[in-house]
Amino acid sequence: MSRETKTTVGVDFGTESARAVLIDVETGRELASAVRRYSSGVIDHRLPVTGAALPPDWALQDPDDYLESLGATVRAVLEDSGTDPVDVIGIGIDFTACTMLPVTSDGTPLCRIPEFRPQPHAWVKLWKHHSAQPEADLINHTAEQRGEPWLDRYGRRTSSEWFFAKSLQILDEAPEIYAAADRLIEAADWIVWQLTGVESRNSCTAGYKALWSKRDGFPEKAFFAALAPGFTDVVDQKMSRRISSPGEMAGVISGEAAALTGLRPGTPVAVANVDAHVSVPAATVVAPGALVAVMGTSTCHLALADIDRVVPGFCGVVEDGVIPGLFGYEAGQTAVGDMFAWFTNLVSGDSRSDAHGSLELEASMLAPGASGLVALDWWNGNRSVLVDAELTGLLLGATLSTEPGEIYRALLEATVFGTRVIIETLEKSGIGTDQIVACGGLPFQNRLLMQLTADITGLPVRVAASRQTPALGSAMFAAVAAGRDRGGHDSIVEASQAMARLGDDEYLPDGSAKPTYDDLFAIYRDLHDSMSSETSEMRRLRSVQVRAREAVPA
Amino acid sequence: MSRETKTTVGVDFGTESARAVLIDVETGRELASAVRRYSSGVIDHRLPVTGAALPPDWALQDPDDYLESLGATVRAVLEDSGTDPVDVIGIGIDFTACTMLPVTSDGTPLCRIPEFRPQPHAWVKLWKHHSAQPEADLINHTAEQRGEPWLDRYGRRTSSEWFFAKSLQILDEAPEIYAAADRLIEAADWIVWQLTGVESRNSCTAGYKALWSKRDGFPEKAFFAALAPGFTDVVDQKMSRRISSPGEMAGVISGEAAALTGLRPGTPVAVANVDAHVSVPAATVVAPGALVAVMGTSTCHLALADIDRVVPGFCGVVEDGVIPGLFGYEAGQTAVGDMFAWFTNLVSGDSRSDAHGSLELEASMLAPGASGLVALDWWNGNRSVLVDAELTGLLLGATLSTEPGEIYRALLEATVFGTRVIIETLEKSGIGTDQIVACGGLPFQNRLLMQLTADITGLPVRVAASRQTPALGSAMFAAVAAGRDRGGHDSIVEASQAMARLGDDEYLPDGSAKPTYDDLFAIYRDLHDSMSSETSEMRRLRSVQVRAREAVPA
Repeated sequence: MSRETKTTVGVDFGTESARAVLIDVETGRELASAVRRYSSGVIDHRLPVTGAALPPDWALQDPDDYLESLGATVRAVLEDSGTDPVDVIGIGIDFTACTMLPVTSDGTPLCRIPEFRPQPHAWVKLWKHHSAQPEADLINHTAEQRGEPWLDRYGRRTSSEWFFAKSLQILDEAPEIYAAADRLIEAADWIVWQLTGVESRNSCTAGYKALWSKRDGFPEKAFFAALAPGFTDVVDQKMSRRISSPGEMAGVISGEAAALTGLRPGTPVAVANVDAHVSVPAATVVAPGALVAVMGTSTCHLALADIDRVVPGFCGVVEDGVIPGLFGYEAGQTAVGDMFAWFTNLVSGDSRSDAHGSLELEASMLAPGASGLVALDWWNGNRSVLVDAELTGLLLGATLSTEPGEIYRALLEATVFGTRVIIETLEKSGIGTDQIVACGGLPFQNRLLMQLTADITGLPVRVAASRQTPALGSAMFAAVAAGRDRGGHDSIVEASQAMARLGDDEYLPDGSAKPTYDDLFAIYRDLHDSMSSETSEMRRLRSVQVRAREAVPA
Repeated sequence: MSRETKTTVGVDFGTESARAVLIDVETGRELASAVRRYSSGVIDHRLPVTGAALPPDWALQDPDDYLESLGATVRAVLEDSGTDPVDVIGIGIDFTACTMLPVTSDGTPLCRIPEFRPQPHAWVKLWKHHSAQPEADLINHTAEQRGEPWLDRYGRRTSSEWFFAKSLQILDEAPEIYAAADRLIEAADWIVWQLTGVESRNSCTAGYKALWSKRDGFPEKAFFAALAPGFTDVVDQKMSRRISSPGEMAGVISGEAAALTGLRPGTPVAVANVDAHVSVPAATVVAPGALVAVMGTSTCHLALADIDRVVPGFCGVVEDGVIPGLFGYEAGQTAVGDMFAWFTNLVSGDSRSDAHGSLELEASMLAPGASGLVALDWWNGNRSVLVDAELTGLLLGATLSTEPGEIYRALLEATVFGTRVIIETLEKSGIGTDQIVACGGLPFQNRLLMQLTADITGLPVRVAASRQTPALGSAMFAAVAAGRDRGGHDSIVEASQAMARLGDDEYLPDGSAKPTYDDLFAIYRDLHDSMSSETSEMRRLRSVQVRAREAVPA
């Protein structure tokens, strides 16, 4: 073994690009970073091969974009840092989830096979593919009817984004693809398979996205049979019951993967993880009390607790799902940075950061409540706590003198009101929050959003020092997979203490803003409850839209 | 008398500019047209003299801008057409209303006098000056309490835009200006005074804006005394009970006015009129059945009937107010073109017509209901039928895939839903509508809006041939004031038949769109009723805003 600095590589697969970092295992220092956009990006209008239009709410990707980005970014961090691959003691990856694809028994994506390539269901379904709502409805209804014991763990409602909704949509709409798929697999696990040559499955996506638990495993066959006769054996035929935990070693770099990445064959590969979840220890949080907000296009909230509670509208509670020995509670907001970018693009035809910056500047000069605006932040549905992809956005209070910066601020505030609903829901279930630790790209781009988060929730807000917490977290889990003997760490708690830090800024709540924000939050909350009711104008409007779109195909 | 073509001049004083037309009295042909923007435009941020910030909801103008525009445009149409002033047999003017100002006994505007110039209340209060809401509330409350008989004529609610609310605001907030004002006068009548050297008052603004009626005159003194002791004699001290009807001659061009305009001294000057009302005969409508929609920054709706009914939320019913022998019913929508311009400006930083054009093009390619959006068009409050300047806009249904053209279409549709509420309210009072005749600038700029008007109301829509119906209407009333002996006409009906025409386009309702628009209208109607209720989120939000603005002065 070399006497040089020991490092690990973490690769974070995001919505638009992949990013690799090379991290000093002892100090957490980032030695190099590289990012690569996916050539085909998010495929949500037309399929690249045929040019065929996709229906509304579809979002696909090309898995070969992942491999291309993986190879390019890992090679780049090695080269840029001048690192000898012998000093790289492990690699870990994390991914958006549930992002899944159908593959053959050797791991070949069906969409790479010419016969299946023109069929949209052969491609990767990205996390924000939302057209499996009928399947999610069926899953929820069936689970409710059958009194499935696992339903409580998921706030009594599962999402159209999750693994079985997406899988069942393939069976419903493209049975030939379902039949041709030897495996249905999370992209996270598929990447680890490409690195090691061996299929493995991680407990984080299994727990949060595929109804699995450490104690009870997957739902029973009779449940899947009740969804569709052909779906009875989905777990045994298309998946695996062998689930590994984050921090374990999934295998080692294969010869083929070494050629792709420049790493040495035999380098340990950590079990895959989810981008948000891997961020928690990278944001220094390994104990109950803090709410971690992973803020980007959407926001994922993660809380740790030593108690097992049912929290209505949460995405899930998974034992050991984030940190071993604790229950990990996940909630989410589906439109955060995405919604700000939508608005920035609306007003400037451009969503560059300087356009954001000028809106943020205008917004930051306003007094709380002075714009007379309030919004419901449901531009991409609502995940927590309503769990309904069909809810839509609302802006109330515009006048002829309303300025873009005022709307921008109202959208920022709306996302924090949504966060406050999540915190209050946790609180009602007995899980308190004493601070917020933010990470992801947004906290670095939008200081106003951080201050609003403190002012509206009444909690102090800290920001993780790393701008790349998912990739850092993956590198940390790679260090744990490598273990102390190879120069890594024995546990994620130990890795977090050595490798993770908070930034210096602390956002404290402005008490003078509180009464106004309490009033605005009460209005938000009433709109939240009335517009999500069964017969609301929002629901009826959606029905009109569905009928209109059926009548006139796009 | 010359054997040349006999002509009249009509001058329309709009919100941003004045426009003069020179019209052939026999055929209605427009021989020349000229427009001039007011140098100071709408003064709604800072007073030009002192730079002092104006409070929210203020909108002032400089009366000398009117004179400058009057002289420039009348001279231009004479010169451009090569007309000998001897052949101009009359001039008529129309104005936005209620647009009013305080003047001395010789007609000098107080804001022209150095002593008063720094005082905002000395300036012209433009129609859209909305800060006299407390005074309007007091007027409504007092009238209700006293059971004032005239209240029914105004849909039981008077507006902050009207004459006595604005006058009372002067008394309340600047008693020294109220005291110094020998006269409080509509800008329309003030212009006629400048043309003739003689003060006169017209029945149209008196009837629709100052609670006057042909049968009962003004409200009694006890009513004004109940508003404020110093207001008891407002009519006798600051106004006049001598009211003239449109079509009458107010006087003739004075020597001074001849020097300003280039017209011959002694040329007949018609009694002043209101821009919207004068448009009705210019849009060919002189009998019951058609609803005239004067569409611009805001929309004014006028209907004629031979019956006298109470129509809730209408701006007023005035006998002979539009066409002699008929009752004229007025309703209004406060944000139409203004709201489209607001949105166009929001998305393009520019409200030029080509930016409108590209949004209209995008919007026109959409199927009804397909955007999933609905809006409440209250960006400038609601005039009919809710009569509340404090209501605000709402946009429901936005998602990350919402395009600017979809929002633009939703705003267009919202204004037509508002029009449909007005038509249905008239209908409930026994006044039917069998077609819509549109005029003003908007129908020529926005064909989609015309088609949506037909589709959503289920009525055929025609557009007046003239793009300048107010100025044409003023020229028509000038021809009536001149009379047949001077080469004019004996009545406005006769003038309308000779001088007004409809355009060739006819917009017929698309029956296939009706079910979708009925559904969307039902949603609009429910939002309309719930958001205007006393405890709605919209109301509470407005209260938060008022408190926030009081706490942090602008």
